[in-house]
Amino acid sequence: MDRRRLYLILRPESTGTAARIFRVLHHVMAALGIALMLIVTVEPLEQAYGAGLAGGFYVVAAFFLLEYVLRLIAAPEAPGGQHRGEHQTRLAWMFSLGGLFDLAAVMPGVIALYYGPDGTLFGFIWAFKYVRYSPGLASLGRVISHARHALLSVLLGFCIVLLSAASLAYLLERHAVHPGDPGAFKSIPAALWWGIVTMTTTGYGDVVPQTFAGRALSGFVMVGGILIFALWTGILVNGYAEELRRRDFLRTWELVAKVPFFHNIGAALIAEVARLLRPRDYPEGTIIMRRGEAGDCMYFIADGEVEVRLQSGSIYLGSGQFFGERALVTGEPRNATVVAAHTCTLLVLDIVDFHELLARQPELARIIREEAHRRLGDDVPRPVPALEADAPIS
Amino acid sequence: MDRRRLYLILRPESTGTAARIFRVLHHVMAALGIALMLIVTVEPLEQAYGAGLAGGFYVVAAFFLLEYVLRLIAAPEAPGGQHRGEHQTRLAWMFSLGGLFDLAAVMPGVIALYYGPDGTLFGFIWAFKYVRYSPGLASLGRVISHARHALLSVLLGFCIVLLSAASLAYLLERHAVHPGDPGAFKSIPAALWWGIVTMTTTGYGDVVPQTFAGRALSGFVMVGGILIFALWTGILVNGYAEELRRRDFLRTWELVAKVPFFHNIGAALIAEVARLLRPRDYPEGTIIMRRGEAGDCMYFIADGEVEVRLQSGSIYLGSGQFFGERALVTGEPRNATVVAAHTCTLLVLDIVDFHELLARQPELARIIREEAHRRLGDDVPRPVPALEADAPIS
Amino acid sequence: MDRRRLYLILRPESTGTAARIFRVLHHVMAALGIALMLIVTVEPLEQAYGAGLAGGFYVVAAFFLLEYVLRLIAAPEAPGGQHRGEHQTRLAWMFSLGGLFDLAAVMPGVIALYYGPDGTLFGFIWAFKYVRYSPGLASLGRVISHARHALLSVLLGFCIVLLSAASLAYLLERHAVHPGDPGAFKSIPAALWWGIVTMTTTGYGDVVPQTFAGRALSGFVMVGGILIFALWTGILVNGYAEELRRRDFLRTWELVAKVPFFHNIGAALIAEVARLLRPRDYPEGTIIMRRGEAGDCMYFIADGEVEVRLQSGSIYLGSGQFFGERALVTGEPRNATVVAAHTCTLLVLDIVDFHELLARQPELARIIREEAHRRLGDDVPRPVPALEADAPIS
Amino acid sequence: MDRRRLYLILRPESTGTAARIFRVLHHVMAALGIALMLIVTVEPLEQAYGAGLAGGFYVVAAFFLLEYVLRLIAAPEAPGGQHRGEHQTRLAWMFSLGGLFDLAAVMPGVIALYYGPDGTLFGFIWAFKYVRYSPGLASLGRVISHARHALLSVLLGFCIVLLSAASLAYLLERHAVHPGDPGAFKSIPAALWWGIVTMTTTGYGDVVPQTFAGRALSGFVMVGGILIFALWTGILVNGYAEELRRRDFLRTWELVAKVPFFHNIGAALIAEVARLLRPRDYPEGTIIMRRGEAGDCMYFIADGEVEVRLQSGSIYLGSGQFFGERALVTGEPRNATVVAAHTCTLLVLDIVDFHELLARQPELARIIREEAHRRLGDDVPRPVPALEADAPIS
Repeated sequence: MDRRRLYLILRPESTGTAARIFRVLHHVMAALGIALMLIVTVEPLEQAYGAGLAGGFYVVAAFFLLEYVLRLIAAPEAPGGQHRGEHQTRLAWMFSLGGLFDLAAVMPGVIALYYGPDGTLFGFIWAFKYVRYSPGLASLGRVISHARHALLSVLLGFCIVLLSAASLAYLLERHAVHPGDPGAFKSIPAALWWGIVTMTTTGYGDVVPQTFAGRALSGFVMVGGILIFALWTGILVNGYAEELRRRDFLRTWELVAKVPFFHNIGAALIAEVARLLRPRDYPEGTIIMRRGEAGDCMYFIADGEVEVRLQSGSIYLGSGQFFGERALVTGEPRNATVVAAHTCTLLVLDIVDFHELLARQPELARIIREEAHRRLGDDVPRPVPALEADAPIS
Repeated sequence: MDRRRLYLILRPESTGTAARIFRVLHHVMAALGIALMLIVTVEPLEQAYGAGLAGGFYVVAAFFLLEYVLRLIAAPEAPGGQHRGEHQTRLAWMFSLGGLFDLAAVMPGVIALYYGPDGTLFGFIWAFKYVRYSPGLASLGRVISHARHALLSVLLGFCIVLLSAASLAYLLERHAVHPGDPGAFKSIPAALWWGIVTMTTTGYGDVVPQTFAGRALSGFVMVGGILIFALWTGILVNGYAEELRRRDFLRTWELVAKVPFFHNIGAALIAEVARLLRPRDYPEGTIIMRRGEAGDCMYFIADGEVEVRLQSGSIYLGSGQFFGERALVTGEPRNATVVAAHTCTLLVLDIVDFHELLARQPELARIIREEAHRRLGDDVPRPVPALEADAPIS
Repeated sequence: MDRRRLYLILRPESTGTAARIFRVLHHVMAALGIALMLIVTVEPLEQAYGAGLAGGFYVVAAFFLLEYVLRLIAAPEAPGGQHRGEHQTRLAWMFSLGGLFDLAAVMPGVIALYYGPDGTLFGFIWAFKYVRYSPGLASLGRVISHARHALLSVLLGFCIVLLSAASLAYLLERHAVHPGDPGAFKSIPAALWWGIVTMTTTGYGDVVPQTFAGRALSGFVMVGGILIFALWTGILVNGYAEELRRRDFLRTWELVAKVPFFHNIGAALIAEVARLLRPRDYPEGTIIMRRGEAGDCMYFIADGEVEVRLQSGSIYLGSGQFFGERALVTGEPRNATVVAAHTCTLLVLDIVDFHELLARQPELARIIREEAHRRLGDDVPRPVPALEADAPIS
Repeated sequence: MDRRRLYLILRPESTGTAARIFRVLHHVMAALGIALMLIVTVEPLEQAYGAGLAGGFYVVAAFFLLEYVLRLIAAPEAPGGQHRGEHQTRLAWMFSLGGLFDLAAVMPGVIALYYGPDGTLFGFIWAFKYVRYSPGLASLGRVISHARHALLSVLLGFCIVLLSAASLAYLLERHAVHPGDPGAFKSIPAALWWGIVTMTTTGYGDVVPQTFAGRALSGFVMVGGILIFALWTGILVNGYAEELRRRDFLRTWELVAKVPFFHNIGAALIAEVARLLRPRDYPEGTIIMRRGEAGDCMYFIADGEVEVRLQSGSIYLGSGQFFGERALVTGEPRNATVVAAHTCTLLVLDIVDFHELLARQPELARIIREEAHRRLGDDVPRPVPALEADAPIS
């Protein structure tokens, strides 16, 4: 097996059969490893099936060792480095976040070899193996990472309030009797335990202030804790909103990039088109355009489905397809009535923007003129072969 | 009773008397069933009134069986299928979410018949019967459904942190003495219970770490749990904002669709009008337009009430009505002063957009000219017979 | 004392001396009443000072009885009714929210007269007396009130999940032994207590599931509870954002209404001006305009302070004042350099909007021409006598 | 050492070596003081190392006394007062927030001198010493400070609900038997403790209602508490969004101010340029502009990196640099192709805005003409010596 094929099998985004089989195996192994690790710590089960459990554990560990070696072999196939077209070195991969986690996933087996069954508990590291395959988690990680300065500031504020609260609680409560835990407020480090349990509103109840002043302080600490963590929520809400805006732009961009109409044009133009599109929602049953009207815009379907009513019958267009460009190019009236089959989101390109685009992009104008000539024989507004190949109308 | 009438009675949105009676009966039956189910499990009450409770339970169960049969009969009247104008098949309804829930609502009676009073506890399924009648719950369900990928990513992150925390807690706490629950940290599955109670900041307090390291870990777990669920809040806040935007558009659209001025025009035009309107708030007492001024826009009342001061006296217009279109059509100055009687939200259509609309829609221009001629005899700016019929000025 | 004066004294917004004294007395009485109510329930204090406490309690109760009578007398002075200029009837006030709360505030005294000291505990109603004087609380009440349908939908979802969880917990846990509370899962109503304590993540810990399945259910219930209440947060975050937008519009509107330049013009025009203004922030030290430049806009200070550097020296302008209108009227270059003394928010009116406003409002044009003539002798761009009278430059 | 140098060393933003050393020393001293304060309260450690701990404590206290004196000496160097260019007086600094906190940091030493080791627990005040060095905390403090009226309104609502709940709980629970704490509901002040623990969903579990009515009340209190604190979250989420908008404007403003192209122009013009720029994101690999195209805008790099492909080879430009201005000035086609090396955020200035700026700013036009002439010999679009000096391309 050559190195390139190995790389493609290991890459999370690959869609080939070998890659799919590898992913299923990988996920099953991680789940199995975690299950074994959980069971090994339950004494009766461990005593009954100890040998089998240990065997399974080493199989999983061996799989992840193998995966590490394979990823190391395939590493130079990944893009990387300072410049475009360069490739990642093996060393760079070993010290990347993914490489270090993959190395950590080899550790439980090594530790178990040295320390016996006790070492198996580090199998929880295998849970992190799923992170690479969850784009949503990566997106949330980006939210936290972008907001890390603000989140850490909140944490600093939390620590300052926590320390102050614990010191005051020690002052107020150290002479009171605490039935649950006599040493609860006998030192400030001990009072910190009460403080953190109270500020996070966890409230185990093993340590409860007994004096009036101590309880009043507790009330302030609870309310203060809620205030501090509400700030945390405020930071993450706004961070997630920013992430959504970023993702929406990329999604529009990708959608435009997929439309054959704009094929072979280059990313810069696609970015410009993406900027000109305005998303608009249509409730089910809305008549989007009527046969015989003058055309003043064209539409891309971002979400949902439309029914195109031609004289020869109806056809349905789904997400990723477009219509209405013909009237803009020819100046003739619409040749079909289009109705929203379900509530749908369309990206609308106005005629002004459409022609401004052509005026500024002579290369695009030539392509459109050719496209228009090719379509003038069509009755159907838009057969999109390229798209239909990998995303059939659902 | 024919099938169409049955369908209309069972439909949640129907306003006829029979439909209302059915709804009241339905809600009373669900509430009664839940109450009986609760009481049956209280031993003294069950022993005293067992027979009566069981009888009531079977009455409720029979009602929901009847409802299931009726809905099955009426199912083909509902719209459905791939294309407009098609109807739902009985089989499609049976396997729809609503159909399955209605089937589940028949189950408590069946289970109780087989297993005796024990089966009654599945009566809690009847609580879900209210979901169909709550549009707000449907809207929130849509928010959760749209955000499900992000929410599940957070849940995956939660599970990974939970497993890691439980493994470390097992390592740190397994040799300590836990008075409340001696086996609390004796295996990782046992430690998971501590983990979930701590990460959600529930803090039952039945299991409390006793070592210094275990308590420090607890602090990180609490703070980490708050961080993870703050992400959840971030996702839902943004999802709900998106849902509100969608609903606002649909509300504007519906408002425009209700105005007789735009009657008989078609959904496409209504969607275009909805896009041109800009909502604007006016505090109580604001003079919105003055008699004798030149008119540059017309207004639709989205919310609140305005006072129209004519020479012949004042009249009040409420939500859903419009004014100020006369001056746009005739070019004459305003014939009344309009004041905000309460703080109100108006949808404003500027004269430029108004005429652009007419220029692009010859059919609309003809209607407006006729409307204007009809109104030129009026002193009152806008009697809206169609609206007044089903929504009188409040 | 005539009825009008009484009304003005009782109105929360009044600024006269008598009104201030009444408010201080009112707040002291409410605080005193609450303090007495708290102390009366502490047995040792009640036994020692019972008579004095009861005396004080009746004094407070008598005060609120007197307040009720006075408000009833003054009620017809308040605006109200269906039409402008009408007044509230006494009956309308009695059944308004404020009137009913004031009546409720009379009740603790009446109840205490009949039932002895026990009745005093209803003194907590006096805490609600502060609501009338807190505009912020009214604003938050409006947020909750606007979002009440969505909030109640969440509550319905909460109840459905709660009932389901309690039923399942009863099924799973009823045969287990619960040391803390043996009857904890012996009936579904009893299990509801566990359910609500767990779903809100309160976690008293008096009832803890003991079976594996019960604990797994608990985990889902905790996470589900957090999800449901995160929806609640989502609703309130968006509701509060909407309230802020509404308040910002009203604030801009009020600011414009206060500027003498637009005095005597009427609310409609002020609303139009408010719409044209764009808020813009300037960091400290920014040069906003320079002497000798052509003027293309005028500025209103919404927040912060600017330094106007004239040839004759510097003057400072604060919130609510404006500058830069002279160059728009005369066409001459700026006669002063203006610098942001602190970070400030200005409302900017562009020259295009300024002249469009004049063209559409002949009455305004006349006023501005007069204003310009009056100011042409001035070197200082803007002495605002009307504003300086009630809001001196701070 | 002169006073000016002392001031620069003590200022948190200074970057000189002496200032860095002072900051490290300051942070170490605060951490040491807090650690000592924590250890002193642990009895076994205090008895073993009491003398050493006390010694260390006084060293830290002496350091903060010295810092206070130094800051007092340097105070007149700080800007302050009503007008620009004025300086702060020593008295003003002593009564400023920073001055009072620095004074408070001297207190633990003084208290320990008088009251012995007991006084050391006030060392928690030293945790606040870090606040001055955390800009994020200042930003969050501003959020809370701006929203303080709304937050306090929520707190008032919380207190009203709390008092009502405690009174009702007292009424319902006072005759029940509470095993954990027999006096839990024997007075309203005692019931307040239950109330606050329940409303904040802390749920210690030391006090649990025993009657059915009391438990139903608890359920409402828990749900009400979550509602009230969700409002708090709503306020802070919106407040933080406002703070982010403010910060974004200032960031754009600072970025523009740093570009040499706009050097020596003055803050007013920079503010105007900042207003004209539109941020736009480009995915990795996007062609931003192509050699030979007509230029219609120029770009500033806010974040990320671009590759400029010249005929003589590629160069990379990073954050804070700009490109594409040459074609706007000369009217010639682009002389390079620019590709997004990583996903990057650019600030775009359109050709229309660019020329409008020149038309309105004759001084800027002269500078640009000079700049253009200087660059016409260059092949590289933009070497920025000033920027490269203090912010090398990363």
